[in-house]
Amino acid sequence: MSLTSLFYPKSVAIVGASHQLGSVGNDLVKNAVSAQYAGTIYPVNLKGGRLYGLPVLKSLAEISGAVDLVVVAVPALFVPQILREAGAKKVKAAIVISAGFNEVGRSELEAEIVSICTQYHITLIGPNCLGLINTDAKLNTSFAPLMPESGQIAFISQSGAICSSVLDFARSRGLGFSKFISIGNKAMIGESELLEYLIHDRQTKVIVMYVEQLSRAEQLIELTTKLSQTPHPKPIIVLKSGRTAAGFLASQSHTGALSGNDAAYDALFTQTGMIRAESISELFDLAECFVHNPRLHNNRVAIITNAGGPGVLTTDTVVSHQLRMAQLSAKSQTELRAFLPAAASIKNPVDILGDADAERYQKVLDIVITDQEVDGVIVLLTPQSMTQVTQTAQAIALLKKRSHKPVVVSFVGQQLVASGLEILHEEKVATTTFPEPAAIAFGAFDTFRRWLKPQNRHHFRFRDVHSDRVRRILAEVDTTVSKLLPTDLTFAILKAYGFPILKRQIAHSWSEAEELAAHFSSTLVLKIVSPDISHKTEVGGVMINVHRTDLKKAYRQLLANVTSKAPLARITGVEIMDFVTEEGVELILGMTTHPQLGKQLVIGLGGIYTEVLKDTAWRLAPLTHSDAQNMLKEVKAHELLEGARQQAKLDSEAVIECLGRLSQLVTNFPQLQEIDINPLKVTTKGALILDARIILE
Amino acid sequence: MSLTSLFYPKSVAIVGASHQLGSVGNDLVKNAVSAQYAGTIYPVNLKGGRLYGLPVLKSLAEISGAVDLVVVAVPALFVPQILREAGAKKVKAAIVISAGFNEVGRSELEAEIVSICTQYHITLIGPNCLGLINTDAKLNTSFAPLMPESGQIAFISQSGAICSSVLDFARSRGLGFSKFISIGNKAMIGESELLEYLIHDRQTKVIVMYVEQLSRAEQLIELTTKLSQTPHPKPIIVLKSGRTAAGFLASQSHTGALSGNDAAYDALFTQTGMIRAESISELFDLAECFVHNPRLHNNRVAIITNAGGPGVLTTDTVVSHQLRMAQLSAKSQTELRAFLPAAASIKNPVDILGDADAERYQKVLDIVITDQEVDGVIVLLTPQSMTQVTQTAQAIALLKKRSHKPVVVSFVGQQLVASGLEILHEEKVATTTFPEPAAIAFGAFDTFRRWLKPQNRHHFRFRDVHSDRVRRILAEVDTTVSKLLPTDLTFAILKAYGFPILKRQIAHSWSEAEELAAHFSSTLVLKIVSPDISHKTEVGGVMINVHRTDLKKAYRQLLANVTSKAPLARITGVEIMDFVTEEGVELILGMTTHPQLGKQLVIGLGGIYTEVLKDTAWRLAPLTHSDAQNMLKEVKAHELLEGARQQAKLDSEAVIECLGRLSQLVTNFPQLQEIDINPLKVTTKGALILDARIILE
Repeated sequence: MSLTSLFYPKSVAIVGASHQLGSVGNDLVKNAVSAQYAGTIYPVNLKGGRLYGLPVLKSLAEISGAVDLVVVAVPALFVPQILREAGAKKVKAAIVISAGFNEVGRSELEAEIVSICTQYHITLIGPNCLGLINTDAKLNTSFAPLMPESGQIAFISQSGAICSSVLDFARSRGLGFSKFISIGNKAMIGESELLEYLIHDRQTKVIVMYVEQLSRAEQLIELTTKLSQTPHPKPIIVLKSGRTAAGFLASQSHTGALSGNDAAYDALFTQTGMIRAESISELFDLAECFVHNPRLHNNRVAIITNAGGPGVLTTDTVVSHQLRMAQLSAKSQTELRAFLPAAASIKNPVDILGDADAERYQKVLDIVITDQEVDGVIVLLTPQSMTQVTQTAQAIALLKKRSHKPVVVSFVGQQLVASGLEILHEEKVATTTFPEPAAIAFGAFDTFRRWLKPQNRHHFRFRDVHSDRVRRILAEVDTTVSKLLPTDLTFAILKAYGFPILKRQIAHSWSEAEELAAHFSSTLVLKIVSPDISHKTEVGGVMINVHRTDLKKAYRQLLANVTSKAPLARITGVEIMDFVTEEGVELILGMTTHPQLGKQLVIGLGGIYTEVLKDTAWRLAPLTHSDAQNMLKEVKAHELLEGARQQAKLDSEAVIECLGRLSQLVTNFPQLQEIDINPLKVTTKGALILDARIILE
Repeated sequence: MSLTSLFYPKSVAIVGASHQLGSVGNDLVKNAVSAQYAGTIYPVNLKGGRLYGLPVLKSLAEISGAVDLVVVAVPALFVPQILREAGAKKVKAAIVISAGFNEVGRSELEAEIVSICTQYHITLIGPNCLGLINTDAKLNTSFAPLMPESGQIAFISQSGAICSSVLDFARSRGLGFSKFISIGNKAMIGESELLEYLIHDRQTKVIVMYVEQLSRAEQLIELTTKLSQTPHPKPIIVLKSGRTAAGFLASQSHTGALSGNDAAYDALFTQTGMIRAESISELFDLAECFVHNPRLHNNRVAIITNAGGPGVLTTDTVVSHQLRMAQLSAKSQTELRAFLPAAASIKNPVDILGDADAERYQKVLDIVITDQEVDGVIVLLTPQSMTQVTQTAQAIALLKKRSHKPVVVSFVGQQLVASGLEILHEEKVATTTFPEPAAIAFGAFDTFRRWLKPQNRHHFRFRDVHSDRVRRILAEVDTTVSKLLPTDLTFAILKAYGFPILKRQIAHSWSEAEELAAHFSSTLVLKIVSPDISHKTEVGGVMINVHRTDLKKAYRQLLANVTSKAPLARITGVEIMDFVTEEGVELILGMTTHPQLGKQLVIGLGGIYTEVLKDTAWRLAPLTHSDAQNMLKEVKAHELLEGARQQAKLDSEAVIECLGRLSQLVTNFPQLQEIDINPLKVTTKGALILDARIILE
């Protein structure tokens, strides 16, 4: 699907163009005309007349020339008709501004317009959106109250109303946009298609998104993997709302989005290198800091300040964002000492004191920014009586231009620093109103840097798996009886995918049990097998630590227990396995299916601590080797594997392998709805699945 | 110490008044004169002359009238001499602006000026500060570049340079100050003395502080306990820097502060009801929101918005700050439904759509704010083409005035919403630039509300403790040999303070052991007692699970182990105790001494999980019963006590009692430097200390 007609149409029709001032249909024409678009604009309205100097046509059919793009702002019920007319006119793209679809429960109407657009090969944006702006083509098909300056930020928003605030803030910070897209209900075109386009858009350096839900994690992972391999990978900054259950409910009521577990989103952002902004304010700060700066090459940050307090606060923020405070070279320190007052601090943060003038700032920044121990600089200024706000801003802008290192500046104040901020904005020096966000921006630079580091981005693909066997098993299962897969099939599937499972065999009689036992160690575990019993322990259906010599007694006891406590249960056998006593740590591995994002994998500490301490890490399938490694590092229990407290080091690699096999299994078989591997016993050499459960769709 | 002469002097001398424009000594006189202070100002400088219309006197002695307050801005080395002259002149208070004391390592000079001030009964602010402002007396003894408006915020700052930024931001938000104090090195007057004064200051409604270190937690706890009992308790909002080790180092270099473990500060703020701001930006938002609002009465918040996205983001923030989204009453919902468009959401967040005009805002706010299910309202506005910014601001201001509930407004934008913000600032309606901070402010309102709830604020004081015994033990210990208290004395101290300790007795011979064993259960633990052995297990000095009938054999074995592995160790006996097998959870209880704040108590999950999972909660002594309760609730392991996973409920009250006794013990005996109670075994009825360690000063 080409988006060119959407962003670079040769002609645009606005259906629903209105004579009523202040209405959406009027604003659309006004905006389109005032943007100085070079193509042809056709306002369409049954009433005819003229609007902003243009003749108003009565219908699309009346237009003599070709129409590339149609903007639709008529009541929802009339939209299908307009789109059919557009189809007949061979329109290539449509932006449906009108509301009244999924977001108010009219999903059939929305399905109808998608089907019309599909039929006529129309690329559809919306419905229920604010429109689209492409400053490069001087195209404004939105009813936003401001036209943005041209610039290098592409903005995609799932909320229409937030756009006007974004434009207003951006203007006050001198930020411009390449493309500005309100995607509304994203019935056809969503963020994936737009990202795919914007990754290659020459006008765009940074992509910023506000979203309430995303879908198809696998596709986004694939897309960003491609992105990471382009010569100038673009950062994608995302503000995702609906983090909490209540927020999710609120988002449902206004966009019809079906959100889900937020941990899955955090996982998605980690895996795709997307940078999650924690608030609207942070979204702006990050956009400005990324767009005005080159890439960060390592994580050593220097701070220059004329006020101790803000320097300390920023240092706190720097080190709590996985950054290091740069250690200035001896040469820099000597140079600084040579001219700075004795009370100044030449260690990082470099405190150049309240009486610092522009020249002192200039000399210090020059030394610090060229120091090879420094990868980026934060400059803080508080307006003291002796501060030269404008000259300092000029000096910073000059040095910033000569450097290839990121610089973020915070002039901490309002009126007293306004003249300086104006210069910094003009000169495209990144600023944050407060000091701490400057450090947060560096944290984001560094997250992006680490994600871009060369790494194996291939997903796990073990060759020793037998997917045919799994396919056969799943084909034969009757899920109408129970979604819970029987234990023997569960283990058969795990075995087919090469998981290290505790050997287990089912005996159907006492004599068979005795025969089988010869192939096990001397102490055993016996478990009842019955399609009617899901909690075996409760009916006395599990016996542990059974010595082989006591097998007969134990076998009888087990059957007696179960027949007395669950007399109606069908008993199909008794499972025999080793009683594992080796030292180690018990983990859980699991998979659940996220409604939008797909297969979600989890690892955590097993036992009673799982529920209480919630020490877990999440990722989305498919995993790479480093995903699995990072997942394991994220759980605190990881230290137990590393040999905390003089314990032996356990086999982490075996756990990573299990995660990889799990990722491959659930990617190949999406009909597996939930998997619980609990416990996975990790020992000094290897890991062993002691029990597991699979639930099908 | 009275601070009246500091805030309300009848006359002020400025020593170091300078003719050089832009110098500190010049700014001080300029500021003092332009503030329109009603008392007399005496500029003092050896050169004489006139300054801003006033005659410059050559020395303090030359002043004919009395001087209440002297402001000193001469080089550090001359300060002692000036203070002596001030003493001779019977000056009551001094503000030393001059730097060059503790912060550059000259602690003797700082000690000298404190001693002079003490000798002459001079109340001292500084040194190394920006000065002090009291808008009520039109007194400005600072060299800050702006004089603040009069208002109800008192600001105390440990950083001088941050003050100018604070004044600049405050002015742009229409915020005024009652008192404004830069405390610098706080050689004599620190935040405690100022808080004590400000709690009773009629002009002050909210106290805001920037600090790099605090001291004497006990005193602050006492002070805020008093505060909680005043008729109109004032919120204290604190920005504390130096959260990280690097930040702490940075703060040391510019104020000479000796900071410490940040968990102790979090504990202090929790216990004193002080509200910790997470950033400079948050400090302003909280100050504005508190000063313009009445107290919050419960935690049900309603959101009104004309944009879905910001509504969702704010909902997320509301629920992640222990607040509840208000459920509007059926009546309100009916009323809203009657006039709102069909697409509007009448559930909270109330989305009144992008085309909302001032009247719609007014009608909705009126219904929501009077709803009895609502305790406070957040109003959000994004500037759409149809938005009536000024009229909406007016409508909000009017309704806010009529209500006794807190309201926080965010007009999300810049130029497009400026006219509305101006009205809101003028009308003293609290605003935040972005939506999420409005919810954070409500979170802070609620924290303060919960802290003010009637509760027993008495510290633990058990009457069944024998402090005399502990005093005697401690008096006899020789700490020159070892700081580690011998086990028997450790347990004697714990016993004297009524802790539930596992009964243990020391046998000095095999026959004595046999005799003693009769008073224990049938399975025992034996431990070697030796002043030379600190790790008993390593030398085979511990035997567990010893049946009474095997006592002789075990006793001999124990001695044999130790004599073979530690042949030179003096053996003073063998400790006998029960082998505890009862089901339960092992916790640790501990105390460490924080360099500034005092005795710091900790509780956490015991065993290998302590180190790995770091599931701990901290408080400062002395504790109240609710402190101890909250501490226990803060650790996730708490759920294990509550009977997670169908386990039995354990005796939490016994743990709380132990915390209380620990608090009392360390408050009574500050020479106890460190205590480790590990493990404390908690069972279904009671708790038992199995082992413990005490380290002395």
